[in-house]
Amino acid sequence: MKYCFGVDIGGTSVKLGLFDMDGTLLAKWEIRTRTDNCGQSILPNIADTILKHMDTLSISREEVTAIGVGVPAPVYQNGICGEAVNLGWQQKDVKQELEALTGRCVYVQNDANLAALGEMWKGAGTGCSNLIMVTLGTGVGGGVVMDGRLISGANGGAGEIGELIAEYEVQSDGSILPRNLEYYASATGIVRLAEKKLAANTRETGLVPGNVTAKAVFDSAKQGDAVAEEVLNDVAHYLGKALTDLAVVLDPEVLVIGGGVSKAGDILLRYVEKCSHIRSCKLVLASLGNDAGIYGAARFALSQGSL
Amino acid sequence: MKYCFGVDIGGTSVKLGLFDMDGTLLAKWEIRTRTDNCGQSILPNIADTILKHMDTLSISREEVTAIGVGVPAPVYQNGICGEAVNLGWQQKDVKQELEALTGRCVYVQNDANLAALGEMWKGAGTGCSNLIMVTLGTGVGGGVVMDGRLISGANGGAGEIGELIAEYEVQSDGSILPRNLEYYASATGIVRLAEKKLAANTRETGLVPGNVTAKAVFDSAKQGDAVAEEVLNDVAHYLGKALTDLAVVLDPEVLVIGGGVSKAGDILLRYVEKCSHIRSCKLVLASLGNDAGIYGAARFALSQGSL
Repeated sequence: MKYCFGVDIGGTSVKLGLFDMDGTLLAKWEIRTRTDNCGQSILPNIADTILKHMDTLSISREEVTAIGVGVPAPVYQNGICGEAVNLGWQQKDVKQELEALTGRCVYVQNDANLAALGEMWKGAGTGCSNLIMVTLGTGVGGGVVMDGRLISGANGGAGEIGELIAEYEVQSDGSILPRNLEYYASATGIVRLAEKKLAANTRETGLVPGNVTAKAVFDSAKQGDAVAEEVLNDVAHYLGKALTDLAVVLDPEVLVIGGGVSKAGDILLRYVEKCSHIRSCKLVLASLGNDAGIYGAARFALSQGSL
Repeated sequence: MKYCFGVDIGGTSVKLGLFDMDGTLLAKWEIRTRTDNCGQSILPNIADTILKHMDTLSISREEVTAIGVGVPAPVYQNGICGEAVNLGWQQKDVKQELEALTGRCVYVQNDANLAALGEMWKGAGTGCSNLIMVTLGTGVGGGVVMDGRLISGANGGAGEIGELIAEYEVQSDGSILPRNLEYYASATGIVRLAEKKLAANTRETGLVPGNVTAKAVFDSAKQGDAVAEEVLNDVAHYLGKALTDLAVVLDPEVLVIGGGVSKAGDILLRYVEKCSHIRSCKLVLASLGNDAGIYGAARFALSQGSL
């Protein structure tokens, strides 16, 4: 029997999954990310966890074909990770260090890119080979898969969908500030838009100034709250434009919306569909939730291993 | 000796190049594109030209490894071309038809995508493997090459950079019309912007209302003409935003500006650089001119042939 591991290193926890070669998730674990001491324990903790569970499950080293790892940082073509602020890492050779600790082949990629690959493999984009995923969470990230391959770019920086310019905002002094998609379409951005609207609002609304969450905006809009609906129209305007632009340049089969904000469900799709002009491309919600990263990491390891 | 042909089918003429396997252009020819009769003669004319020159140059069929062909249309994954309005073609199986006419392997791609590949191979992006090209001509097109591979998308429609939304224009009736990059940054768009500015202009200017060309705008701006400078600032604003967006999503090594408008030279780069926020990526002018398409076609044929 052959296996592979998918590892998703986040700022709070590390998720680990054991997969068979067909991509069935056989077991998963989660450990705390120890960011103290410049994150020096993170890779040893991952190696210990993998080796311990291999032992428990009687899996030999030879049966583990590879380990895929997602990191919240750009990953260069030589496999070295750029600075990962959330982990306390400066530039780090994750591949080499984790290979030394585990004795297995390790393949490293950016976490948002791997989530896109995971959704293509076993999630909302199953059966597609051209997919773009945008992740709406505290921030906005994304990943691009074309012809079944991850696009990582010259410096591992591809997929930064949150950095798309959404608007040139005129400041009170008349100067112009470019605002990116993340500024409007992240959970934080949705709250910001809502609070701003509430500050100038005289209508009845279920939203409480100073205490808005992205979830509350969606819940209120579902109830027909006019202020919440206006906020979502604004969010959808920026998101719809960004997705339309991505679709014309890259011609994907499917655009996947994931991340915490996507838990709002179909209402998010309805708003975005109204504000986008996407031909010959499906718009869907992610389906793997927090597991997208480990699926993608496993898929990446398997595909790299076969090159 | 082994050779390959690169063919670039345009609405007015077909360009053909004979290349050795290293990509040296040994000879090139141009024939008229006969768009009459639904463009039925185009492929037979190309085949005749290739076979005639092979005969003249004493090149045997076995010495021609492949023929690459660029068409002004999307090309699907099965090699079939979508409608090519400029050629009079409905959907057409260019690969099969030209293979039957020449007896050689034929590989077909969109012409703007091939121009990008050509610039990467032997032009402004030589040595790079992640490149985006935007072509500013009568229209605005483009091509994306990542990890040395053309991105053609699910339906062969990738690279349509001219379709990026540049602005939401408020109409006189208050409705909002999305305007794309082509509307502002094509030669036609530059003229439109200039004529609009001239209609409301009271300053001295070298531009003649009703008789503006894109070249005249650049020439006047070089002389310090304030109206022409304003027009180029507007063009550069839209182009700079588009290139910035492409750079953050795809992280290329180089952004290449080509097409007739790029003949304006360094002044175009200076204006665009002022309006873009591109990190870790070079912005350069295309260097192959009208030959980019045949270089790209040859490269595409050679790379497909080796798969």
